[in-house]
Amino acid sequence: MNPQMPGTPKKNLMLFGGRAYPELTDEVSKHLNVTVTPQSAYDFANGEIFVRFEESVRGCDAFVIQSHTAPINQWLMEQLIMVDALKRASAKRITVIMPFYPYSRQDKKHRGREPISARLVADLFKTAGADRLVSVDLHTAQIQGFFDGPVDHLWAMPLLADHIRGKYAGHEITVVSPDSGRTKLAEKWADTLGGAPIAFIHKTRDPLRPNEVVSNRVVGKVEGRLCIVIDDMVDTGGTIAGAVKQLLSEGASDVVIAATHGILSGPATQRLQDSGAREVVFTDTLPIPAEKRFPNMTVLSIAPLLARVIQEVFEDGSVTSLFDGNA
Amino acid sequence: MNPQMPGTPKKNLMLFGGRAYPELTDEVSKHLNVTVTPQSAYDFANGEIFVRFEESVRGCDAFVIQSHTAPINQWLMEQLIMVDALKRASAKRITVIMPFYPYSRQDKKHRGREPISARLVADLFKTAGADRLVSVDLHTAQIQGFFDGPVDHLWAMPLLADHIRGKYAGHEITVVSPDSGRTKLAEKWADTLGGAPIAFIHKTRDPLRPNEVVSNRVVGKVEGRLCIVIDDMVDTGGTIAGAVKQLLSEGASDVVIAATHGILSGPATQRLQDSGAREVVFTDTLPIPAEKRFPNMTVLSIAPLLARVIQEVFEDGSVTSLFDGNA
Amino acid sequence: MNPQMPGTPKKNLMLFGGRAYPELTDEVSKHLNVTVTPQSAYDFANGEIFVRFEESVRGCDAFVIQSHTAPINQWLMEQLIMVDALKRASAKRITVIMPFYPYSRQDKKHRGREPISARLVADLFKTAGADRLVSVDLHTAQIQGFFDGPVDHLWAMPLLADHIRGKYAGHEITVVSPDSGRTKLAEKWADTLGGAPIAFIHKTRDPLRPNEVVSNRVVGKVEGRLCIVIDDMVDTGGTIAGAVKQLLSEGASDVVIAATHGILSGPATQRLQDSGAREVVFTDTLPIPAEKRFPNMTVLSIAPLLARVIQEVFEDGSVTSLFDGNA
Amino acid sequence: MNPQMPGTPKKNLMLFGGRAYPELTDEVSKHLNVTVTPQSAYDFANGEIFVRFEESVRGCDAFVIQSHTAPINQWLMEQLIMVDALKRASAKRITVIMPFYPYSRQDKKHRGREPISARLVADLFKTAGADRLVSVDLHTAQIQGFFDGPVDHLWAMPLLADHIRGKYAGHEITVVSPDSGRTKLAEKWADTLGGAPIAFIHKTRDPLRPNEVVSNRVVGKVEGRLCIVIDDMVDTGGTIAGAVKQLLSEGASDVVIAATHGILSGPATQRLQDSGAREVVFTDTLPIPAEKRFPNMTVLSIAPLLARVIQEVFEDGSVTSLFDGNA
Amino acid sequence: MNPQMPGTPKKNLMLFGGRAYPELTDEVSKHLNVTVTPQSAYDFANGEIFVRFEESVRGCDAFVIQSHTAPINQWLMEQLIMVDALKRASAKRITVIMPFYPYSRQDKKHRGREPISARLVADLFKTAGADRLVSVDLHTAQIQGFFDGPVDHLWAMPLLADHIRGKYAGHEITVVSPDSGRTKLAEKWADTLGGAPIAFIHKTRDPLRPNEVVSNRVVGKVEGRLCIVIDDMVDTGGTIAGAVKQLLSEGASDVVIAATHGILSGPATQRLQDSGAREVVFTDTLPIPAEKRFPNMTVLSIAPLLARVIQEVFEDGSVTSLFDGNA
Amino acid sequence: MNPQMPGTPKKNLMLFGGRAYPELTDEVSKHLNVTVTPQSAYDFANGEIFVRFEESVRGCDAFVIQSHTAPINQWLMEQLIMVDALKRASAKRITVIMPFYPYSRQDKKHRGREPISARLVADLFKTAGADRLVSVDLHTAQIQGFFDGPVDHLWAMPLLADHIRGKYAGHEITVVSPDSGRTKLAEKWADTLGGAPIAFIHKTRDPLRPNEVVSNRVVGKVEGRLCIVIDDMVDTGGTIAGAVKQLLSEGASDVVIAATHGILSGPATQRLQDSGAREVVFTDTLPIPAEKRFPNMTVLSIAPLLARVIQEVFEDGSVTSLFDGNA
Repeated sequence: MNPQMPGTPKKNLMLFGGRAYPELTDEVSKHLNVTVTPQSAYDFANGEIFVRFEESVRGCDAFVIQSHTAPINQWLMEQLIMVDALKRASAKRITVIMPFYPYSRQDKKHRGREPISARLVADLFKTAGADRLVSVDLHTAQIQGFFDGPVDHLWAMPLLADHIRGKYAGHEITVVSPDSGRTKLAEKWADTLGGAPIAFIHKTRDPLRPNEVVSNRVVGKVEGRLCIVIDDMVDTGGTIAGAVKQLLSEGASDVVIAATHGILSGPATQRLQDSGAREVVFTDTLPIPAEKRFPNMTVLSIAPLLARVIQEVFEDGSVTSLFDGNA
Repeated sequence: MNPQMPGTPKKNLMLFGGRAYPELTDEVSKHLNVTVTPQSAYDFANGEIFVRFEESVRGCDAFVIQSHTAPINQWLMEQLIMVDALKRASAKRITVIMPFYPYSRQDKKHRGREPISARLVADLFKTAGADRLVSVDLHTAQIQGFFDGPVDHLWAMPLLADHIRGKYAGHEITVVSPDSGRTKLAEKWADTLGGAPIAFIHKTRDPLRPNEVVSNRVVGKVEGRLCIVIDDMVDTGGTIAGAVKQLLSEGASDVVIAATHGILSGPATQRLQDSGAREVVFTDTLPIPAEKRFPNMTVLSIAPLLARVIQEVFEDGSVTSLFDGNA
Repeated sequence: MNPQMPGTPKKNLMLFGGRAYPELTDEVSKHLNVTVTPQSAYDFANGEIFVRFEESVRGCDAFVIQSHTAPINQWLMEQLIMVDALKRASAKRITVIMPFYPYSRQDKKHRGREPISARLVADLFKTAGADRLVSVDLHTAQIQGFFDGPVDHLWAMPLLADHIRGKYAGHEITVVSPDSGRTKLAEKWADTLGGAPIAFIHKTRDPLRPNEVVSNRVVGKVEGRLCIVIDDMVDTGGTIAGAVKQLLSEGASDVVIAATHGILSGPATQRLQDSGAREVVFTDTLPIPAEKRFPNMTVLSIAPLLARVIQEVFEDGSVTSLFDGNA
Repeated sequence: MNPQMPGTPKKNLMLFGGRAYPELTDEVSKHLNVTVTPQSAYDFANGEIFVRFEESVRGCDAFVIQSHTAPINQWLMEQLIMVDALKRASAKRITVIMPFYPYSRQDKKHRGREPISARLVADLFKTAGADRLVSVDLHTAQIQGFFDGPVDHLWAMPLLADHIRGKYAGHEITVVSPDSGRTKLAEKWADTLGGAPIAFIHKTRDPLRPNEVVSNRVVGKVEGRLCIVIDDMVDTGGTIAGAVKQLLSEGASDVVIAATHGILSGPATQRLQDSGAREVVFTDTLPIPAEKRFPNMTVLSIAPLLARVIQEVFEDGSVTSLFDGNA
Repeated sequence: MNPQMPGTPKKNLMLFGGRAYPELTDEVSKHLNVTVTPQSAYDFANGEIFVRFEESVRGCDAFVIQSHTAPINQWLMEQLIMVDALKRASAKRITVIMPFYPYSRQDKKHRGREPISARLVADLFKTAGADRLVSVDLHTAQIQGFFDGPVDHLWAMPLLADHIRGKYAGHEITVVSPDSGRTKLAEKWADTLGGAPIAFIHKTRDPLRPNEVVSNRVVGKVEGRLCIVIDDMVDTGGTIAGAVKQLLSEGASDVVIAATHGILSGPATQRLQDSGAREVVFTDTLPIPAEKRFPNMTVLSIAPLLARVIQEVFEDGSVTSLFDGNA
Repeated sequence: MNPQMPGTPKKNLMLFGGRAYPELTDEVSKHLNVTVTPQSAYDFANGEIFVRFEESVRGCDAFVIQSHTAPINQWLMEQLIMVDALKRASAKRITVIMPFYPYSRQDKKHRGREPISARLVADLFKTAGADRLVSVDLHTAQIQGFFDGPVDHLWAMPLLADHIRGKYAGHEITVVSPDSGRTKLAEKWADTLGGAPIAFIHKTRDPLRPNEVVSNRVVGKVEGRLCIVIDDMVDTGGTIAGAVKQLLSEGASDVVIAATHGILSGPATQRLQDSGAREVVFTDTLPIPAEKRFPNMTVLSIAPLLARVIQEVFEDGSVTSLFDGNA
């Protein structure tokens, strides 16, 4: 399956996994042909987390995978504690892998007296002892600059686009951004799909009530076309489900949703299912349990990409090829 | 009630409270005669926390109270985010008040390849922007040294001892440490109570099975005496309930439990209630909801002590008098 | 002119200005009614910069204005040296004012093995001794998070929009983003102008030659309308002049350009003048010398906004009102 | 003697020794089969220390041994200067070995307005350039958390206990803590010695004169038993000699003192000799010169333990096995 | 005596003194009209230093005086510990006053594999919590740059030169540097004394034995003139006594020695007394005890200068006037 | 030419060069037998610099050469940006090579309220990510101490002295410092040249007008001798040309100038040419273009020295031998 990976464990490369999504760590470990380092990890009765590694980690090149799903502060703290334990136990280099970067939406002060939590997260990991970060499709690429050290910013779009291209060859495609903030991403998709036209949904606000959206207008041509609505993440699904309906009402022949991170909180699954979309495609940077899935949802595995970047970081190979254009 | 506190809000002193135990912040605010600064604080659907202050905090002397109860990582992260927001909004000085210091039991590596999470917590607050910490009855006083800056270490023992002294005057008291690690604390209690004798429970281990306790022995005189079993915190209550039973079986006339932090996880309330103890005394550094209380439990308010330290820090008065002997 | 500013110099507030654009510092000083602190500042023969302040700065609240025009590295280094001198001479607080944030376009790695120079700039100022930054219309708002401390992010859009609104009342306006990356900004403009429709120019690339733009398409309605092409900065003017031509060729009745930062390098002035735009509006965050101006160019003064933020920072007032929606 | 250590010098491992106790460094070097790196080290006439290494240290894995005996500030400063010289001469990693951690008793503020000198010491070494620390039997294990990096906390108790077990097999042993603060250590000894009972000396204070001890009481059974009085260090010997007398007066059949660090200041030797103890056992983490020794004193060498940890750190082996239960 | 200093203690200004030279602190306190803050400071039996302040220091502007005489590492460590205690007790600002900067001669690597101890000292104080440094006549002015913060570099030359000018008016003076490294200082003296000629002693080395001085030659005119031999410090006195003899042998009419720091180690007093110098002038930045003094030695008090800089720092006045030309 | 350098590129050693003086990097690369890593480096229209490396640099041992000639701030910023890019692209170690240290003359505050720009430069490189610095003939050796890490301070004097010795064997040489500040350097030259006498030019100032030089006097014997006027750098050439004239007017038989850094700003070339000096010798730490050269100027290549230090740093050999006596 992965011919250039030898059958013997790599000396020094050690893989660690948090408890949020152990299946992802396991799958990465299979691609790498290394075992996940055994550990004790449990919660005290009051919620305090305890972690202890069962094998010596001195001098190792440590890769610590955590998937930042709910309860997100729990998993964030667990990964920080794992990094602290690795630092104090003399790991040589500590790479933090967070396929979905927590708090990435709070990457600026939207108004005064707000935190910039995405910067805070970067600083917390630096303080705990992280030497480098790996993440997939950051909400804004500027988050790379929040960490004082190397960041490998992977790009899942080729994975998603390959799927779309394979399945919808021959369709007249328009790439649609569900709001004005993702238009540039839509343009990249359009280039990848061979020069498709793009569109976006424009929200109009009443100047007297600025927090209230008065109406949505589609800007761009969508009539009679297969619309691929793209985004980096889907949380409660309200915006994107609204976009699908708007597109269908304006004559789109069909709509497909493609996004990297399926947060899928609360009503998201129901909304997506009811939206009228022909297919919904995610990667599994976050776990998507069976009860949140439905027949028209496709989940692509992110593990091969993570395994490849770990291999290249470990061997000091070039990761740039993994995210050309975006990182 | 507090005559030297004027009726007008202090210029510059601003009080902030996390969502874990707002009643405590409110009570402190009444003692200080200042209002708690209004804020928006809520969770996103995936558990990410958002905080925004509703008033300008520029140049203020900020005091941020959080009570670290379960879900403890949630409340820890909330307080970090509040500190970040204060730093970025130009608070002049930020004092973090954590009546119960989270992760204080993980204050050393018990064995290899463990974190020192209590140091990590101190560093996380430093990174977020905290200038000073205030805490009550740290699990070990050395935790003061984990923070690179001033730490006010308050001491709740006088509060608890006053209660005991008032209620059990005339009894023959022995102060008992529930294990060998709190003997020194028992000695301080004994001095405070006027020279009472002390005892402790000695756990014997089989050298071939070091993690297994073979038997408990009481070291010291307890027969016919009122035993005050003291500790800094009660979590699941197993050790302390066992101590009560052991003491009663060795002839103690009665047993009273006194501890600062009532974590009271899982079976704790039931165990305490069933232990045979005459009274159980805590402070409310952590919230103790109605369903965890029972008739023989007494909960003393920590708010006056916190209000006093805030006042003295704000006025650059001397806090030493608040914790003589311990801080 | 500014009635609430008293006629006597503020105790402690001291204003410093780099040599890049002294007229701006002078204008700010008039609005504040303080004098610019006299200094010696000159270049050694090999280009090394020397700065010395002529008055004691001990304990002052220092505001250091520099305008980052070409030669930009010269002015960046001068401001760093000024900050170092202030730190070593015991200024109490040092606020760096950079109306145009240098290297703001290099705010992420576009591809591998690139610097993130905007983060580097923030770190250099932190190292030199800066306590806080003030800037206007950052290229991306995430740059706020690059600095480890308070950042006041001012917003010049209301200033520009007031001008447009006053002058073009009654026109049928469409707000146009010159590329897909500014669509969100266009949406904000549209809201400010009372709900105007928006459009943007979509660049199509040949997938086999990804660095080459094949064609530009206007997405959105522009025919017969007055198009306001907006952007944060205009450097060589190629993109924006191209946008004007495209819009006119697709039937726009007229085109007006509005941008905060007029870098205006090389052929910019000629291109703007030849583009067919009816008016070009900038602020003077960067100096625009007489030879780069032409009859249809309007330059609005940024000094009142800077003076107001300095006043509020000095008095610990709330700056949030100055940039609602953006900061 | 140490068969797995080859006869040729290790490439890269370099051993450095301060002037406080060169014999210890020499003995460690023999166990490691490496030579101590030659250096010039002397005092200027005013007490300033000068150090220069006689061989290149570029890229080496440096281990710097100092024994913190009186004049302790002299030797502390010498070790800091050695670390600075190694850092500036490009040592790859610098491990500071301080068998006795200086200022370990000042590990908290006992009262207000005191330093936390043990934390200060950790920070001074970090600042000078130390990457990791090695120490033996810290006064409190929490000191590990004072250093921001790996700390190997070695445990001399097995060494001392082996000696006791071998010599006093068949005796009825009680392990005694000389005060209430070492009861937990006594419990560990008791487990190691196969489940012996424990006791401690309880100091009673007059509440009106809190700094004055009114009387000592032995808590626990000692009559007719061989008491092993244990402690981490013996400084002036007052407390421990008093304990011996108290134990003998309460009927102990015999008393043996066992402690890791023999500071032995001022009257200590005389007091120990006069105390009535049958034997006094120390390790040589601190030098014990001939004039401080007497016939009933046994000094065990700490060098093999130090050599073993150096070897394991150098080879990235697991040091955990060296201090199971304590580190 | 100091009319502009009011008779009441300054609010907030607190003065602290190490044990090396309490008379200097006392004298400074008289000039400032403030009392020295009472403290407990003593050595444990093994040399560890303990310090505790007897009054609250919260929010104070702390000035900590220590004189770095032998045993210099003892006094250095004491001052670091005082700073740590002040930081942890919430002093608002901490200024370290070291009239003689310790380890100032080790301000560079003279050869490879040496420390730069003067930089280390600056970093140790920064780590302990010092906000600013004050020192007199640094061995090289570049040491100012070793501290990351404000340094007030005072200049004792005017004090010494006033004395010389007053006493030797009318003499034909030549200013002499005792070696080639102080020629620039001699030039400054010459300017201060109204344009006197200068000379220096040139040491010739045998290229085959570079550490051995073959001969001394006086470069410059000294015959028949009163030679003022100047230096920043006199340690063992060998160089300067040799210079006096050389000058007298080359026909100088008389020789006077003037230096800021009288370290006067070992044979220094005897050498100076025997050198043939007419007068030797020092300041008391370091204590010069009675047994090191002799009739021709003059010691000028540095206390007024220190008091003046403390006053100006406290009031945020300009210290520049105190050391024009040198600082 | 360099026999111990193998013909194959070194694994891991990567050489990077700024745009200021690519010929120097090229020459170093030839001596090392490695290729300069290809990069894109250009200026945006407003002067912002962009750099991108064309090959993976992960895990490499990076050496970044820049020559700090005018426009010096441009080249300083470029090197900082290169270091930032290397850090973010995971170079293992980054060594900054600056043959001429920029801002080295501003190594102290000459008067109050000045920067210490040489320290600032060291801190900027540390912040950007530099692990070590290499420089040649620092203006003062104390600048080594400004960087928190290893500094290799190379010494070009042997190179210059070899040239002088070879060409002027048999002459009666006096080594002359052009002012009082370089007398010690003159002494080192004198030793190297076998014990030559030394002299210097003494500038007399009017005490009433301290910034004005009244007259220059030569101190030392120069009549009838070949004077070698030495310095670390020549900027505008005024001082040194004046020295030549003064020496010739006082009877020197001939004058030769030797200095490491030929800054040669403005009138320098003309002044040197007109000074009457027989020869002027520099190294090429800074580029000296053809138009600044004249027949009597000799420029010695610094590349072999830089190549040798890179080789030794890379192989962890001892660099001390390269600068004995000075570093």
